[in-house]
Amino acid sequence: MFLKALELHLEAEKPIVILNKSDAEELDVRPLDRVEIVFKNKKLVGTVNIAKKFVKPGYIGLYETISKQMRLKTGDRVKVSRTEPPTSIEFIKKKLNGSQLTGKEINQIIKDVVSKKLSDVELTTFVVSLHNHGMTMDEVASLSEAMAFTGDILDLGKEEIYDKHSIGGCPGDKTSMILVPTVAAAGLTIPKTSSRSITSPAGTADKMECLSPVDLSVEEIKKVVKKTNGCLVWGGAVNLAPADDMFIEIEHPLSIDPLLLPSVMSKKKAVGCKYLVIDIPTGKNAKIKSVQEAEKLASKFIELGKRLDIKVSCLSTYGEQPIGHNIGPALEAREALETLMNKKEP
Amino acid sequence: MFLKALELHLEAEKPIVILNKSDAEELDVRPLDRVEIVFKNKKLVGTVNIAKKFVKPGYIGLYETISKQMRLKTGDRVKVSRTEPPTSIEFIKKKLNGSQLTGKEINQIIKDVVSKKLSDVELTTFVVSLHNHGMTMDEVASLSEAMAFTGDILDLGKEEIYDKHSIGGCPGDKTSMILVPTVAAAGLTIPKTSSRSITSPAGTADKMECLSPVDLSVEEIKKVVKKTNGCLVWGGAVNLAPADDMFIEIEHPLSIDPLLLPSVMSKKKAVGCKYLVIDIPTGKNAKIKSVQEAEKLASKFIELGKRLDIKVSCLSTYGEQPIGHNIGPALEAREALETLMNKKEP
Repeated sequence: MFLKALELHLEAEKPIVILNKSDAEELDVRPLDRVEIVFKNKKLVGTVNIAKKFVKPGYIGLYETISKQMRLKTGDRVKVSRTEPPTSIEFIKKKLNGSQLTGKEINQIIKDVVSKKLSDVELTTFVVSLHNHGMTMDEVASLSEAMAFTGDILDLGKEEIYDKHSIGGCPGDKTSMILVPTVAAAGLTIPKTSSRSITSPAGTADKMECLSPVDLSVEEIKKVVKKTNGCLVWGGAVNLAPADDMFIEIEHPLSIDPLLLPSVMSKKKAVGCKYLVIDIPTGKNAKIKSVQEAEKLASKFIELGKRLDIKVSCLSTYGEQPIGHNIGPALEAREALETLMNKKEP
Repeated sequence: MFLKALELHLEAEKPIVILNKSDAEELDVRPLDRVEIVFKNKKLVGTVNIAKKFVKPGYIGLYETISKQMRLKTGDRVKVSRTEPPTSIEFIKKKLNGSQLTGKEINQIIKDVVSKKLSDVELTTFVVSLHNHGMTMDEVASLSEAMAFTGDILDLGKEEIYDKHSIGGCPGDKTSMILVPTVAAAGLTIPKTSSRSITSPAGTADKMECLSPVDLSVEEIKKVVKKTNGCLVWGGAVNLAPADDMFIEIEHPLSIDPLLLPSVMSKKKAVGCKYLVIDIPTGKNAKIKSVQEAEKLASKFIELGKRLDIKVSCLSTYGEQPIGHNIGPALEAREALETLMNKKEP
């Protein structure tokens, strides 16, 4: 079917198209089905929304993501056809019903996640199925690699890259802000990405932002690391293991975290990490409640590291009180600086 | 925070509002969070989408669902505040983690489903959790009642209402088109709602539409039943157990059907059914593969019927070949008519 393009100037992460109800019926598509749009040898798959009046028959409303990428203007004639759903949906259904996935199947799912071919219904089904059925170590390793290699890879041209990660959950934790400069000053390469606050008053990226910009691009990270051996940047600003950020959007409202291991390790793989220390705060108010639990998690990280060619050491640390004296981004940044300057306690 | 309304003339089933990124940050809301909008003593909760340019700071873009309901025009000043997510989300998480839900909790979930307060992520989590953990008979009964009583109830002012349902899956099945007029002619009341085609070439509603309109309102159904004792209408056109239709939107792309029992029985409860016959086509290409499986399903329907005050009889019928001679809506409608007219076989 040929339809006229209609630019909607609507922003959306996902490639959405709006069809009139009558055209949708003729194409035999329902909401959330997919159509292929062809224009001047360019092809793109969009997810269907349906309107009764907002888009007239004969037109196809295009979100900015699509009209920009295909350089379409209102009135351009495009070919629209129904297309089969991505194959990864079959693999998601397989996991939904409790089967184990192969590396190839996981790869296809993550590719489709990153290229935004999956609807919220399908993404949620995948995350909830991982939560319900768990994963084998083979699945975790495949997921970590697929998540790393569907994004940018930080290539610093060095063999020995060091990194540090904390499972989090302790207020006042400014370990990274002390550890990264120390390691870098000792001559080791440590390109650290951090998150902003999720549950704590301030994430490492929030604290660091009190002192310098943290939304660096991959090229800027390279420059800084070349000059200083290390960096402390916000992971959300770079395209390193981007599937992880899309999973977080689903996990956050459900407060579940079935992707903890691949989430951490895919980001490390993407910066080329070879030696990694993982801090596991342990205690009754922390995410990890007991030393036994911490040891179990540690052995999983170490095993996963072996498969991904990253040497991992884990520490279970005391997680029942704030770390240091201050809480809040500016105060924490100052405390970290003062510690680095060898100032006495207040 | 006060914002100026901006009518978007966008159609959507769900109450969506679009905020500029800076206003969203000030309100501390993320995409899919909820805000309360207050205008002239009217209150409404909307789901947040975020735009960088499409909606300017100081404005709130409103989908038609909201602007119409609140009688808002572009430029009207509305009070917008962050609101806590609906309580039913906690109950969905409870089911996600394998616990049984109480009748009260199920009621709250279905109320929020019908008033469109839940996002696709939350709805999918509920459906997938039911699929993974199953339901007790208590849960099934509560769900059936909650789904029935959150929609319209067909009150025909009669005590004895009869109905018939087929689990489906057989091509050429025109049983309802023969059974409903026969039962009605015998003087019994049988207000039958049917579905359109899902997997078969024609649903009963599609066949019936070859002979008469099927998208009747509850008032029109009452009129027809008063005159003829029965009707054959499309269930999707009436607001009987509407939660069911919202669940189908999620189940369809995943090809799962954890809500089979409450889906059937909530629609029957909504038409006031007291006596129900369920046809279970059985065979290797049907949905139900063996007689044992059919018997198991039958006993569940009978038990559920007892709890809902509906007397249920089930039949396992031969489901390995088309029923009758013709397939396709017009041919099936004609065959049904000819059978009613006592015509010989062709």
